Amino acid sequence: MALARVARSGLRRSGGATGSYTSERNALSERVSDHKSFFPSLEKGNVHNNFTCPSTTRRLNHTSFWSRGIRTTPHYQFPLAERIVESESEQDEPRRPGLEATKSGEKPRVVVLGTGWAACRFLKGLDTRIYDVVCISPRNHMVFTPLLASTCVGTLEFRSVSEPVSRIQSALATSPNSYFYLASCTGIDTNNHEVYCKATSSGGLPHEPYQFKVAYDKLVIAAGAEPLTFGIKGVKENAYFLREVNHAQEIRKKLLLNLMLSENPGISEEEKKRLLHCVIIGGGPTGVEFSGELSDFIMRDVHERYSHVKDYIKVTLIEANEILSSFDVGLRQYATNHLRKSGVQLMRGVVKEVHPKKIILSDGTDVPYGLLVWSTGVGPSEFIKSLNLPKSPGGRIGIDQWLRVPSVEDVFALGDCAGFLEQTGKPVLPALAQVAERQGKYLVEVFNRIGKQDGGKAFSAKDMSLGDPFVYKHLGSMASVGRYKALVDLRQSKDAQGITHAGYASWLIWRSAYLTRVISWRNRFYVAVNWATTLVFGRDDSRIG
Amino acid sequence: MALARVARSGLRRSGGATGSYTSERNALSERVSDHKSFFPSLEKGNVHNNFTCPSTTRRLNHTSFWSRGIRTTPHYQFPLAERIVESESEQDEPRRPGLEATKSGEKPRVVVLGTGWAACRFLKGLDTRIYDVVCISPRNHMVFTPLLASTCVGTLEFRSVSEPVSRIQSALATSPNSYFYLASCTGIDTNNHEVYCKATSSGGLPHEPYQFKVAYDKLVIAAGAEPLTFGIKGVKENAYFLREVNHAQEIRKKLLLNLMLSENPGISEEEKKRLLHCVIIGGGPTGVEFSGELSDFIMRDVHERYSHVKDYIKVTLIEANEILSSFDVGLRQYATNHLRKSGVQLMRGVVKEVHPKKIILSDGTDVPYGLLVWSTGVGPSEFIKSLNLPKSPGGRIGIDQWLRVPSVEDVFALGDCAGFLEQTGKPVLPALAQVAERQGKYLVEVFNRIGKQDGGKAFSAKDMSLGDPFVYKHLGSMASVGRYKALVDLRQSKDAQGITHAGYASWLIWRSAYLTRVISWRNRFYVAVNWATTLVFGRDDSRIG
Repeated sequence: MALARVARSGLRRSGGATGSYTSERNALSERVSDHKSFFPSLEKGNVHNNFTCPSTTRRLNHTSFWSRGIRTTPHYQFPLAERIVESESEQDEPRRPGLEATKSGEKPRVVVLGTGWAACRFLKGLDTRIYDVVCISPRNHMVFTPLLASTCVGTLEFRSVSEPVSRIQSALATSPNSYFYLASCTGIDTNNHEVYCKATSSGGLPHEPYQFKVAYDKLVIAAGAEPLTFGIKGVKENAYFLREVNHAQEIRKKLLLNLMLSENPGISEEEKKRLLHCVIIGGGPTGVEFSGELSDFIMRDVHERYSHVKDYIKVTLIEANEILSSFDVGLRQYATNHLRKSGVQLMRGVVKEVHPKKIILSDGTDVPYGLLVWSTGVGPSEFIKSLNLPKSPGGRIGIDQWLRVPSVEDVFALGDCAGFLEQTGKPVLPALAQVAERQGKYLVEVFNRIGKQDGGKAFSAKDMSLGDPFVYKHLGSMASVGRYKALVDLRQSKDAQGITHAGYASWLIWRSAYLTRVISWRNRFYVAVNWATTLVFGRDDSRIG
Repeated sequence: MALARVARSGLRRSGGATGSYTSERNALSERVSDHKSFFPSLEKGNVHNNFTCPSTTRRLNHTSFWSRGIRTTPHYQFPLAERIVESESEQDEPRRPGLEATKSGEKPRVVVLGTGWAACRFLKGLDTRIYDVVCISPRNHMVFTPLLASTCVGTLEFRSVSEPVSRIQSALATSPNSYFYLASCTGIDTNNHEVYCKATSSGGLPHEPYQFKVAYDKLVIAAGAEPLTFGIKGVKENAYFLREVNHAQEIRKKLLLNLMLSENPGISEEEKKRLLHCVIIGGGPTGVEFSGELSDFIMRDVHERYSHVKDYIKVTLIEANEILSSFDVGLRQYATNHLRKSGVQLMRGVVKEVHPKKIILSDGTDVPYGLLVWSTGVGPSEFIKSLNLPKSPGGRIGIDQWLRVPSVEDVFALGDCAGFLEQTGKPVLPALAQVAERQGKYLVEVFNRIGKQDGGKAFSAKDMSLGDPFVYKHLGSMASVGRYKALVDLRQSKDAQGITHAGYASWLIWRSAYLTRVISWRNRFYVAVNWATTLVFGRDDSRIG
């Protein structure tokens, strides 16, 4: 406990960070001045705001945060967020809609940004007798990402890998002061303990964009990451990612469309080959699993149901280095051989440009394609980048070992959007479901503990011990490679010793492990039914929409 | 048999029809002249075409058809179809891609337009030892339409009500000269026994629109109908239809979006009521079943999982006359009472205009809505209207009692796009799955019979008897009204006597009847599984995409 406090204050005191924040603040001020003409009352608003805070604690906090430049969302990036702050200082203007700060006597409000692994594990465990909870996310369900690749080819149904968030935490649907908002967070005001949001809509609301704010006692940022494109031209326009259920739907539609288009009369041999060339960029687990699923689909279903064009379809996996680089060398070799035997062409290469019908590699090779799936890992999203919070190496939100964002009060970050600050001496953890889920579990235990000690309200857990810091212990990795084969690597790190296995037994472990980890009984049942029907009847290939 | 021939020639000889065709032809010629500047060699092309036919029979036929103006697709409407005909007369120009006419020694080719009830029943039964088959449709699956309403609220999964056409007739996928083309038919040349098609694509093909032609020995038009909008302003822009799986997907997305939007902070009471007001126009079986499903969804799932807004959601069914007008009066009364008890508001009214957030009735009433579903029946599609074929009362393709289009050779039409010609003395049959399926079954028996007698090739069945004419015997109607209740009306017509029943037993009959009629075992299994899980776990409400 003492250690915890030392570590925390160590972070807070860290001279280097303060220095850099200060200089960042100066830079910010300059930029703000540049934008003065657009937001005339900006600086007045801020000053005013700092001095109208009711409680001394808050005022002190504001001042100290501001002096270090940590006002989370830079206002020039979110003019509306700024205007909200402004209008509140003007008593005659109408207040923007939103949830006001909780009053004493009311339960503390936890605001969770996101519905991924970290957020949902946190939501699932939260003691809603202690807390009210508001979840804000542009999607209302969690995606069981490890099985997403299987949905693209129809092995699993889309609905089997998604879980509505209101089933994960029923308070969101039923508790009078808990809500789920289908919205994106556009900014955070750590001074006022408020988040700014924009509703996801398509023309149904009184005015659009429909913006509102939500006050929090505690904020949990689990907003995830975005696919990395390395600034390569044409990726966003032409490639498919594989992160959401609708991505999988789009890939499936495109694949089936290309199969049907290539049957059209008068399509040349070359054009058929191009249409049916599926290229996957990135040899991580997602890329490899998708290649495996695709080759299964081709060997079983395309051969049976698209026999006119079955000899034209090819899968190529392009990777700059080695595939599955985090796996044991023996497993890597196994995967390479297995994919080759399944007809997947493995290619070393770095993508230079992406055009609508071909990619160009850095060595000048043209690779014509019909379907391009991009899975080269993830990095911080624009939203995370825009937050004026301390950052970890690599640009994620910087956290301490208790998953707190230091130097702002009551803000926590976890999952793919968060990474340990350099000062913690810990490495940034990989963007894995396993990490996110473990962090969600850890943090919700912390929350339930401090909540019981009346530390749930804003500014109330300042000097409270959070218990042991978060320690990540890697349980191992798994990846299926198609044709009832998978890899299981139970080593704790890349260089450690441990059990590794590849083959049919691993595939059984892979399936059972995922089946038990699918969140609800309903989806467990559906996944099992899907697998059984695929085995008996083959995959469905209706192209809907 | 003799009767058949008499009836047929009677149709062919019908003076009135010939007269009207002739005058129509004159009108057409005039219009063609108007367009001369766009298609300079139009008339030359036609003449040329008529005189280059290799066989005497064909030449004679062309001449006689043309003299009656029955060149199916008016060229001015399909300039490309025209150009195809043109270019073929020029020997030095490259030929447009397509399937050429079958040669002697090859199997005859049946071309089927559509993948609805009629087309799929026909495809399923076709003897592919006798025929090659080409199916052309913008969707690659059949939709089990009676269960579509259930998918909008998540009672059934989308995949459970759709059946890939290659599973219905496997020759399409595997037979060397049989194909499924994902394309729309744009024109028919009954002279040359060819259909013109445009591939459904989204930028993947060498040039777009990608057009091709397919020669047929026999043509089966089962291209379905389109929702009727009666020319009311704003229907197409603002209302949802319920005819395809993607319509159901859109309705589901909109419904879930509105439920979530209405939870946003700051939404006024009035706005919440509007967002959650689901209006259904049309009190036929689809409208009633959708209302029933919606009220089930509200009573069970919305109350449990959207408890913040559950009191705002309302369903209104607007019908100009009586709901379920084809059903027995007792059943109608039962349905009315049941729907009212389930909270569905029944309203008499005629829609005048549809605006994005409200409809205006002809009596001036404004009805604000959040979701508008339009199910007022179907009428001939633009494609069917464009065909220069004889028409039935109501504008469908006119057929005789053997489902033939008289006065053109080897063309058959069935399902919602076809209706008995006035001369047959038979009424146009209602646009029901039951009718379409029965017609498909009848026609495929005719085809298999004449095929065995070497009547499969073009012009070869001219004087062959087709056997007994098609007679439709109505087996009765069913409609579910929600909350485990349904109506079963086993009377053969509106005014006949017969068994009618409403209630829980009917609902069991309704479910079992549909379960046995779902085409594949895979989908039968899935529908049963979906029903069981809905009962146990409730409906899924992930909003995907």
